[in-house]
Amino acid sequence: MITGKNYVGHRSSSNGKKVFKTFNPKLNLENEWPFYEASKEEIHEAVTLAWEAFGEFRNTTGNQRAGFLRKIADEIEALGATLIEVYCQETGLPEGRAMGERGRTCFQLRSFAELVESGSWVSASIDTADSDRKPAPKPDLRKMMVPIGPIAVFGASNFPLAYSTAGGDTASALASGCPVVVKSHPMHAATGELVASAIVKAAKATQMPNGVFSNLNSSGIEVGEQLVKHPKIKGVGFTGSIVGGRALFDMASARDEPIPVFAEMGSINPVILLPKALKNKGQEWAKIYASSITLGTGQFCTNPGLILGVSDAGLDDFIQSLAEEIVRIEPSCMLSPGISKRYAESRSKMLGEGEVNLAADYAEVVAENYAKQAVVVVEGVDFLKNPRLHQEVFGPFSMVVRCKDAGELETIIRGLEGQLTGTIISEENEIENFPNIVNALQNRVGRLIFNGVPTGVEVCPSMQHGGPYPASTDSRFTAVGIHAIQRWVRPVSYQNWPDKLLPEALKNDNPLGIERLVDGVLTNNSL
Amino acid sequence: MITGKNYVGHRSSSNGKKVFKTFNPKLNLENEWPFYEASKEEIHEAVTLAWEAFGEFRNTTGNQRAGFLRKIADEIEALGATLIEVYCQETGLPEGRAMGERGRTCFQLRSFAELVESGSWVSASIDTADSDRKPAPKPDLRKMMVPIGPIAVFGASNFPLAYSTAGGDTASALASGCPVVVKSHPMHAATGELVASAIVKAAKATQMPNGVFSNLNSSGIEVGEQLVKHPKIKGVGFTGSIVGGRALFDMASARDEPIPVFAEMGSINPVILLPKALKNKGQEWAKIYASSITLGTGQFCTNPGLILGVSDAGLDDFIQSLAEEIVRIEPSCMLSPGISKRYAESRSKMLGEGEVNLAADYAEVVAENYAKQAVVVVEGVDFLKNPRLHQEVFGPFSMVVRCKDAGELETIIRGLEGQLTGTIISEENEIENFPNIVNALQNRVGRLIFNGVPTGVEVCPSMQHGGPYPASTDSRFTAVGIHAIQRWVRPVSYQNWPDKLLPEALKNDNPLGIERLVDGVLTNNSL
Repeated sequence: MITGKNYVGHRSSSNGKKVFKTFNPKLNLENEWPFYEASKEEIHEAVTLAWEAFGEFRNTTGNQRAGFLRKIADEIEALGATLIEVYCQETGLPEGRAMGERGRTCFQLRSFAELVESGSWVSASIDTADSDRKPAPKPDLRKMMVPIGPIAVFGASNFPLAYSTAGGDTASALASGCPVVVKSHPMHAATGELVASAIVKAAKATQMPNGVFSNLNSSGIEVGEQLVKHPKIKGVGFTGSIVGGRALFDMASARDEPIPVFAEMGSINPVILLPKALKNKGQEWAKIYASSITLGTGQFCTNPGLILGVSDAGLDDFIQSLAEEIVRIEPSCMLSPGISKRYAESRSKMLGEGEVNLAADYAEVVAENYAKQAVVVVEGVDFLKNPRLHQEVFGPFSMVVRCKDAGELETIIRGLEGQLTGTIISEENEIENFPNIVNALQNRVGRLIFNGVPTGVEVCPSMQHGGPYPASTDSRFTAVGIHAIQRWVRPVSYQNWPDKLLPEALKNDNPLGIERLVDGVLTNNSL
Repeated sequence: MITGKNYVGHRSSSNGKKVFKTFNPKLNLENEWPFYEASKEEIHEAVTLAWEAFGEFRNTTGNQRAGFLRKIADEIEALGATLIEVYCQETGLPEGRAMGERGRTCFQLRSFAELVESGSWVSASIDTADSDRKPAPKPDLRKMMVPIGPIAVFGASNFPLAYSTAGGDTASALASGCPVVVKSHPMHAATGELVASAIVKAAKATQMPNGVFSNLNSSGIEVGEQLVKHPKIKGVGFTGSIVGGRALFDMASARDEPIPVFAEMGSINPVILLPKALKNKGQEWAKIYASSITLGTGQFCTNPGLILGVSDAGLDDFIQSLAEEIVRIEPSCMLSPGISKRYAESRSKMLGEGEVNLAADYAEVVAENYAKQAVVVVEGVDFLKNPRLHQEVFGPFSMVVRCKDAGELETIIRGLEGQLTGTIISEENEIENFPNIVNALQNRVGRLIFNGVPTGVEVCPSMQHGGPYPASTDSRFTAVGIHAIQRWVRPVSYQNWPDKLLPEALKNDNPLGIERLVDGVLTNNSL
């Protein structure tokens, strides 16, 4: 049952006066449940509880936290069909997507459980003493990662499960030993409440301290603002727009004590089509890209919004094929009337730029909140001149840029803003002829893809999801995969500390059996 | 010979109109050499060259960069007695310190050479493909660290060699593949020029691209400001005051493209004296601390500025012994008239706070720019009430706080600002009785020391030099030890990338023989 209440620690709470509802974009109707936006007092209480819980939670063992994370996954699965139905009611996304995303969310929780159970993630390092060293004796030094404190996690509009309440940010923060206060996304507050109830159930069942997790409803920017400015919040995780992410970053940087913000923001994910690939397989690639551009109604941060090629017959054929293929695809529903409206606006603004030509436009009438896919074409020289053409159009939209030659293509890549991904489509041995283009692209992106599509972000240790600004606010970290835990931890050294008082990870006899750097050599031996 | 010129890439340059000189604080006299502050054009040219050099430098091999770093160390040593003399003339520090710091600087350069030669620092990770996976095939993903771009390094007033021109920031950035533009410290511009000449010589000898390193003279804040705001600078390294570090952080955060600032700033480095230790060895510890407080005229960022104990006879005896010991030590010269003046001012401001009692004050007349050491005592209740008492007095100064009991001691620690270090002085088995104090202290510091002094920062992998704000602007990184390289790198993933085009670190046959995480298991095997 959806109550519309916040979770302030383990407790349900609805003291606020502001009430809002979520929306079913497919039916174009408000959903039934009223939600109570968190009041200032509730926000303060949630953070205070998180800070108090931190003292205990950061000293739990990896096994204890793994048990908590696994239990969350179990409880999410135990929500059964209800979660899937509510998810679909609040997003307009199909059931298959809801189930896939639930699977991804539970997989992430269990991956982090495995990580903290195995324990090596703390990057333990030991340098043994040398009392005979001249001019001064060398002390014994041991270092490991510890959590930084309560983290504010912002639910993402486009991933109600995998990047929201119990998504990658929450899972990685809890795994590290940081309590989490979620600012629930207003578009899917019911989905958020259900997942939050699973987390609170799991916290109680595994004896986690009250305050280890809170879930706050919000309909505007106030709750998030108060959270980020609260002195006891020590880090922020966010997935969303550049405007939103940058606002949080600015707030966090202006605090008396600035805190790290990991915001994964916009990206147009350039795709470079090399000439031979276009000539030999242009039609195949057009089909594949029509599908990638419209996947999830184009509402993925890795959506291919920019396709670059050198102007020739092969590129023109590709544009024609892409235009034909993309209008064959049945339009689908966007996440909300607001997002649908913004898509229509930014699409028509882009079409209003003089240099932009429409190559494909879905001509039929579509239902309310459904998106008409589109492909536009511009010349390289115009793209270079007009930075407005570099802006993301969030939805099933892509721009093909016709460059006059490889030199212009390279210049365009060099001038691009930071991106999550960059893709190269090439025939066997063709890419070797474009070393400068590959080198330039590598410097602008977080992930390079060869002969594929950028949509589909594999959850594994080798994934980098993040990139130079504005793809993310700190390119040194990833939002996906086990290394996402590194956003929430800092190293602490122990100098000449008595063995019996050291954390398990640093004790002489290596009771956790983890990999450690001992006098510069990686080993899981005891000392 | 000191020319007073900047290095704009490999080229000497002196187009600016502003001229300044450095100062010999021991002789209380200006040094002879005129220095030309870098002009706006020179700054822009240095950064542009760095950006151009980045394209080539980031693709050099670990062995090539190791050769460069080792050659820098050799060239610094080849400067011989001249460097030591000039260092002493600009700092008032003794020859032994100059030689020790030169040794540390060259050790750091060679440590980073070893690191990038061995190659495993790139954190290579490989997840192999699984074409049979359902519902979708699993791609091949491989990840490694790559450099972020040109770094601005600010010379530190108190470490003209080890944290300035070729210090830890420069060494770690160059090791990672990032070009460096140094803003030379105005107090030791000649030392900086000599070291810069060694770096440029080494760059030429090892065929590094022009622009891989520049050294810019500055007498005020303008050069640094222009550097941090330049769009082609991608990161900042700084060691100095909270005011200075925060100003740079604010500038960097307000850029169109915000960039990471690693500022290592102030700290009062709390030391906790447990009762039994005071009772049994109070006099010994007083002697050791008198020496630590006055080491380097108290101009270390790890200087013990705050000593905490529970009020009893042992603590009073300790205070008396510390007072006696500290005035026995011969006063020494501070780095500059400005620093000496600020020490006198902040010392007398602290003494002006009503609750502060002077326990020891060097009574004799001292020479110009020499510092009179001092120890003051306050009650715990006053320390809790007055946050001005938490401020650092940069120099040979320390404050002893008498807490009424262990509870008040814990409250004080919980309320402390972030610190570089925290020390506990304890008898055998005594510390076990204070678990809350240890737990609270761990949460406020970057390094914990048992029965020792915080001064003396060992250069080794297990060192954490950095801590919660304001000890540093990002507690997730260290400024000392090989892991300092992680400040300047970001991960890049390669998806389904052809083996022959992958960087060496990620190729199937592991030509570098490095440790890699392959399908979740650390190994140096080939695939």
